[in-house]
Amino acid sequence: MSESLWESRVRKVEPYVPGEQPQQENVIKLNTNENPFPPSPMVKKAIDEFNADNFRLYPDTNATMLAKALAKSYNVSEKQIFIGVGSDDVLSQAFLTFFNSSEEILFPDITYSFYDVWAELYGIPYRTVALKDDFTVNAEDYLCKNGGIVLANPNAPTGVLESLETVEKIVAGNSASVVIIDEAYIDFGAKSCLPLIEKYDNLLVVQTFSKSRSMAGMRIGFAIGSEKLIKYFNDVKFSINSYTMNMISVIAGTAAVNDEEYFIKTTSEIIAVREYSKKRLSELGFIFTDSMTNFIFAQHKSVPAKEIFNKLKNRGIYVRYWDKPRIDNRLRITIGTRENMDKVFDVLKEILK
Amino acid sequence: MSESLWESRVRKVEPYVPGEQPQQENVIKLNTNENPFPPSPMVKKAIDEFNADNFRLYPDTNATMLAKALAKSYNVSEKQIFIGVGSDDVLSQAFLTFFNSSEEILFPDITYSFYDVWAELYGIPYRTVALKDDFTVNAEDYLCKNGGIVLANPNAPTGVLESLETVEKIVAGNSASVVIIDEAYIDFGAKSCLPLIEKYDNLLVVQTFSKSRSMAGMRIGFAIGSEKLIKYFNDVKFSINSYTMNMISVIAGTAAVNDEEYFIKTTSEIIAVREYSKKRLSELGFIFTDSMTNFIFAQHKSVPAKEIFNKLKNRGIYVRYWDKPRIDNRLRITIGTRENMDKVFDVLKEILK
Repeated sequence: MSESLWESRVRKVEPYVPGEQPQQENVIKLNTNENPFPPSPMVKKAIDEFNADNFRLYPDTNATMLAKALAKSYNVSEKQIFIGVGSDDVLSQAFLTFFNSSEEILFPDITYSFYDVWAELYGIPYRTVALKDDFTVNAEDYLCKNGGIVLANPNAPTGVLESLETVEKIVAGNSASVVIIDEAYIDFGAKSCLPLIEKYDNLLVVQTFSKSRSMAGMRIGFAIGSEKLIKYFNDVKFSINSYTMNMISVIAGTAAVNDEEYFIKTTSEIIAVREYSKKRLSELGFIFTDSMTNFIFAQHKSVPAKEIFNKLKNRGIYVRYWDKPRIDNRLRITIGTRENMDKVFDVLKEILK
Repeated sequence: MSESLWESRVRKVEPYVPGEQPQQENVIKLNTNENPFPPSPMVKKAIDEFNADNFRLYPDTNATMLAKALAKSYNVSEKQIFIGVGSDDVLSQAFLTFFNSSEEILFPDITYSFYDVWAELYGIPYRTVALKDDFTVNAEDYLCKNGGIVLANPNAPTGVLESLETVEKIVAGNSASVVIIDEAYIDFGAKSCLPLIEKYDNLLVVQTFSKSRSMAGMRIGFAIGSEKLIKYFNDVKFSINSYTMNMISVIAGTAAVNDEEYFIKTTSEIIAVREYSKKRLSELGFIFTDSMTNFIFAQHKSVPAKEIFNKLKNRGIYVRYWDKPRIDNRLRITIGTRENMDKVFDVLKEILK
């Protein structure tokens, strides 16, 4: 197609490429860090009880029912809660809201691949900071002038968890900018930095229902911070779209939050299978970081990752591989059910022999 | 609260204030242009048949099922469809995508009150163009250098419909910028400008499920344009959030689109009640534009709008009033059921006597 005149006025971006969603049946899908368990049965119940006639009305702009449930669960005030359409929605709006200066924002060279996409999209200057060879953060690197900081903790795709001390050092050393801690994977045995929000009003903690609450298909993410921070954040949100959370998300999300028992049971099982998987992968000749997430970021001692990736795919097992500097010999393998993981280890044994 | 250092880096906005959502029971709510009828019974059926276990997986990034249904219904290709979380999501992303130059964008002085909010938010220079005294557009005013144009047609809150000739004149005269026609209210008897997209690749037509499809609570909006335009648009969308449409929205939206019969029946009834309401309002001493929407923008010959607004509210009838230049003596009254409208006219008769 030839270039039209109006095209010069268009914002042009390289869009983020999400993990493949295979269309065949009977695949083992360990490539997008989805939860192997269904959501709480209370979610189904809430949807069954919902009267679809209500859809004619606009939803509650504040998603009050869900905000109240989250506030109670995390022991904060409702005014400290921001809710969005998945944590990507929350994070992209946080970039727009809080990274509004001419200073560079900082994030690691190896991390969630949306951060640079959002920075490019909104025209935010940024600089990536190299992780150490073991994929850990050097806190000192973040103690310099900046327009904001975003850190995934535990980090993706490395699985590495930074200590609360490291996080606090970075937050405390940056009172002139907002520090976003993306805790998408925090519920698999790691310790959240949420308690720090009482002390630091520049800290925004972002979490999601997509991993630990088995609700990727429902699109719910949220952030917690000081009332002041959340007020600015909601002002921007209400300037984009007054009604982002549809009625079903609000009731289903609330049901999930209220079923604490199911949440603990399923996340504990994933942690158990993860630790079991570390043992099995180790026996198969893999080395990996000590993941505190629902995935393992592994490389084999002798066989290239890309080769294993393709061989697994040919057998209907999808894991994630990136042909990118420093991580091009690694596979990110989501933790599935014990049964599925055993099948994967059987196939790996064959591939690697 | 005292000012924190990080606050200088925050994007500060005056958020849009949506219409009041009264919490009492037994009110007649005619203030946010909601549909008085429930959505198609097929919507309820689709939700009942959905297996909530699927929520553990990410939804389809392209909302393919819904895109196919819309493409079929509007006789365009799937590649010409963009889907978002309500038309506010679609429009705000359209501003971000297509209004990316240093030239001023143009829109009427009286129109949907989100346009200037989005322009402010994204730092887009803009200039409002005064409507004529009868609230119609002068097409010549838009035939000048600009960074883009957005027109609601029929316009809100005026209810005025511009002819296809006027729209075509503006689109044809602006090949160097994108023209967005916001057709949120098009399904109540007006003629869509969709056929023009075959001729003009700079035209984006935006519609919503919130009014004519009785699904405000579900948050579905969409846009149709040339493949080239939609490609740029989706690239930005996928750079913000890969998965905006949750699984339930996709199946419920598809069910609504496929029930053409219900759609025609309910929109026809609203049109009939609107025409009946015009007659009744006229008898009560109101004057108004010849609305082609699901609301009437009326002023009384002798009683100030604000006074009527407050008196109605005291009796549990909510309509919309803006204390803004040129429209501060007008009420925007949503068309409800015939029964509700009769109650409103009874109350008005009392108030005005």
